[in-house]
Amino acid sequence: MTQQALDYARANGERFRQELHDWLRIPSVSTLPERKGDVRRAGQWLVDHLRKIGFERAELHATAGHPIVYGEWLKAGAGAPTVLIYGHYDVQPADREADGWTTDPFEPVEQDGKLYARGSSDDKGQTFTHVKAIESLLATEGTLPVNIKMLIEGEEEVSSAHLVEFVSAHKDLLKADVCVISDTALLTRDTPSIVNALRGLVYMEIHVQGPRTDLHSGGFGGTVHNPAQALAEIIAQLHNPDGSVAVPGFYDDVLVLTDDDRAELRKADWEFEDWAASTGLAKAWGEPQFTLRERIGARPTLEVNGMVSGFYGEGAKTVLPGKAMAKISCRLVANQNPHRIYEQIRDYVASITPDTVQVKVVKLHEGNAAYMDPKLPVMQAAIKAYEQGWGKRPVFMREGGSIPIVANFQQDLNVPVVLMGFGLNSDGAHGPDEHFHIDMFHKGIDTLIYFYHEVAAQH
Amino acid sequence: MTQQALDYARANGERFRQELHDWLRIPSVSTLPERKGDVRRAGQWLVDHLRKIGFERAELHATAGHPIVYGEWLKAGAGAPTVLIYGHYDVQPADREADGWTTDPFEPVEQDGKLYARGSSDDKGQTFTHVKAIESLLATEGTLPVNIKMLIEGEEEVSSAHLVEFVSAHKDLLKADVCVISDTALLTRDTPSIVNALRGLVYMEIHVQGPRTDLHSGGFGGTVHNPAQALAEIIAQLHNPDGSVAVPGFYDDVLVLTDDDRAELRKADWEFEDWAASTGLAKAWGEPQFTLRERIGARPTLEVNGMVSGFYGEGAKTVLPGKAMAKISCRLVANQNPHRIYEQIRDYVASITPDTVQVKVVKLHEGNAAYMDPKLPVMQAAIKAYEQGWGKRPVFMREGGSIPIVANFQQDLNVPVVLMGFGLNSDGAHGPDEHFHIDMFHKGIDTLIYFYHEVAAQH
Repeated sequence: MTQQALDYARANGERFRQELHDWLRIPSVSTLPERKGDVRRAGQWLVDHLRKIGFERAELHATAGHPIVYGEWLKAGAGAPTVLIYGHYDVQPADREADGWTTDPFEPVEQDGKLYARGSSDDKGQTFTHVKAIESLLATEGTLPVNIKMLIEGEEEVSSAHLVEFVSAHKDLLKADVCVISDTALLTRDTPSIVNALRGLVYMEIHVQGPRTDLHSGGFGGTVHNPAQALAEIIAQLHNPDGSVAVPGFYDDVLVLTDDDRAELRKADWEFEDWAASTGLAKAWGEPQFTLRERIGARPTLEVNGMVSGFYGEGAKTVLPGKAMAKISCRLVANQNPHRIYEQIRDYVASITPDTVQVKVVKLHEGNAAYMDPKLPVMQAAIKAYEQGWGKRPVFMREGGSIPIVANFQQDLNVPVVLMGFGLNSDGAHGPDEHFHIDMFHKGIDTLIYFYHEVAAQH
Repeated sequence: MTQQALDYARANGERFRQELHDWLRIPSVSTLPERKGDVRRAGQWLVDHLRKIGFERAELHATAGHPIVYGEWLKAGAGAPTVLIYGHYDVQPADREADGWTTDPFEPVEQDGKLYARGSSDDKGQTFTHVKAIESLLATEGTLPVNIKMLIEGEEEVSSAHLVEFVSAHKDLLKADVCVISDTALLTRDTPSIVNALRGLVYMEIHVQGPRTDLHSGGFGGTVHNPAQALAEIIAQLHNPDGSVAVPGFYDDVLVLTDDDRAELRKADWEFEDWAASTGLAKAWGEPQFTLRERIGARPTLEVNGMVSGFYGEGAKTVLPGKAMAKISCRLVANQNPHRIYEQIRDYVASITPDTVQVKVVKLHEGNAAYMDPKLPVMQAAIKAYEQGWGKRPVFMREGGSIPIVANFQQDLNVPVVLMGFGLNSDGAHGPDEHFHIDMFHKGIDTLIYFYHEVAAQH
């Protein structure tokens, strides 16, 4: 029976992508207040689409922020397992000019086997593989081997603030046997991988206040501690020369890698050439005693996400800025506590701030890291699905990114979570020219058709 | 006879300021390409005004950049000295929202004895004191004790690039016995001062290129040298902990202060309370072995004028930026060579740049420092003018700002230059809420009426 669904998916592939284009055209940028209407429109688009392909129920749930899409098809019955599918329909900001996109980020273009658009990989495109796998099964088999609950949020890129609340408040509605998420990257195009660790996150702003206002650099330069310089001095002290984070206590709670862990991670290690191709760089940076994959997956980091001060337009303005600001965020691993890390950074920054400027460290949001045991039955179902859909056994990987809600699913819903991604780290998620490989979109649909059957078989 | 001109200036003071308001309303921001038309309009406004008050000749001279205003009145004859008045009609950028102005920077407001507007002090307002002193003399005496040449440029805030060329090409036209410039600050409202040293300037951009594009901080953080961090590390190494500049050779050519120099500078030293009131800061910064006035006037500095990288808008974007940029400029003293300083910084930055990023240091523009001997006759004329106009003998000061063209006047026109400013360092030049004290505008006009007579008397 599976073959009919696979044939249907292949025959309708072109239409599937045109539908995805329609969804990608809606600029559902959750962090921009002026996009609030578009975010809602993207959520409503999915609700309408789920109803159209045969979901029994599909609706927008209002939150204090952007709405949550919930859909279900439960006709497999009480004897069949229930799969909770999580994804997100909001996207990162994207500005063609400012960020250097080749094409309009909200006008999808297919070229050289890739679909270019903001959200094509992260995460509308990956979420859509589930939608189309379910459509293919319903259209050909008239039923599904599992019950389906879809929970697709509109605030993943802004810390899932209201989803956590929603999950806590709807434990019965969301009750499931397994949870599957497609929002991660494969090791390489030909090496499928299952992510079994995700990093947590804590996001902050460092504000440096110097003089009351901007001053004339000639009239005051040399007597005032320049806040841009003071901020640079603080940032320069956040890392040690070896690339490790200099904040006292930062590594205290990090789960230490065992020899077995490191052996498993080596199977999925990153070739330097692949890393270099993705970054355009000739030389890596970071803690030298850890491999590239370990630095990304098993070690916490501290990054400057942005910084601004004074005059940075074209030309020259001889101003001594009144203030400076940097956005920094830490990727965390099990068992680090995000708020504790924030406190450590706040206290360390205070301790290195000279008395010539005022500094404030403000926490914007946070999320916990997560770890999933590869021996769980749902992991075995995923392995078999990839073997059939991709023709190769997947490796287990620790991912550098953060999906903080995974920790909430584990804790609040007591459900095992499997991360079956179909993207690549080189997709440009969060950067310009984000894209999704078209063949990986279709292989993802195939793999999920197998996966739902394998989950039923393992039950 | 002088009294009649002074009475006229007093009687017409309100009208003088209304005329200045009209000029200030034209947003002649020379650094912004979109203001090109406004800059020209402000120049033409002055040309028309000079003709109206009785200049024999007044015209706009086209340049490859913004036009230069030239006007003359030479009826005093060959026996009388010729005064070259230099000023500028272009202004710094000003954005009410972004820069935090209380009122519209291009809609002049008079309040609490101050005239608020961009350019009110720097330099339309100060230039206008000459125009109105000349009008007052012509209207009452029917003649002037000196010949007048006015050279008012539209590119002072963008390094006077085309003025230098114009001066070289028009040495005969600009031939004069003395040059006077009103574009500086008094020590305090009650202490007139003559600036006899100006700092030079060299303006640069430091560009740091990391990965080819912005990357996902989760997918790559910890393996890539973050360019914002690398830039911060470079900036942090530009100064020593004592506030001195760390660039090798930076102080090599600095004219060393003698004990006499330091004694003269002490007369004009800055009270810490005044400095604190201007900056809003409780603690000064900089080379501890020099007084505040010495740090500003007699020592070179290196300031960050602005810096930018990655995402700095509202909210959170977990990006690892591809690049980072800082604008830095040095204020230089005699006998430092601006291009040599640029080369020293460029080479030093190259020497401290790690091989994990690419760095480029680009020079935007430069100007020489200048020093004028207080014993010159024109200085004596200025002293007497202030004594009459202000009721107090002026002190000599070394100014922290730069008027690079002063060095060109000295060298190309072989003319002594006297800097008779009527502003204050707290006027907010280059910052928000720029203003000119109304009584200082009027006292400036009086002082110049005296000055032209004193120049004739000294001749």
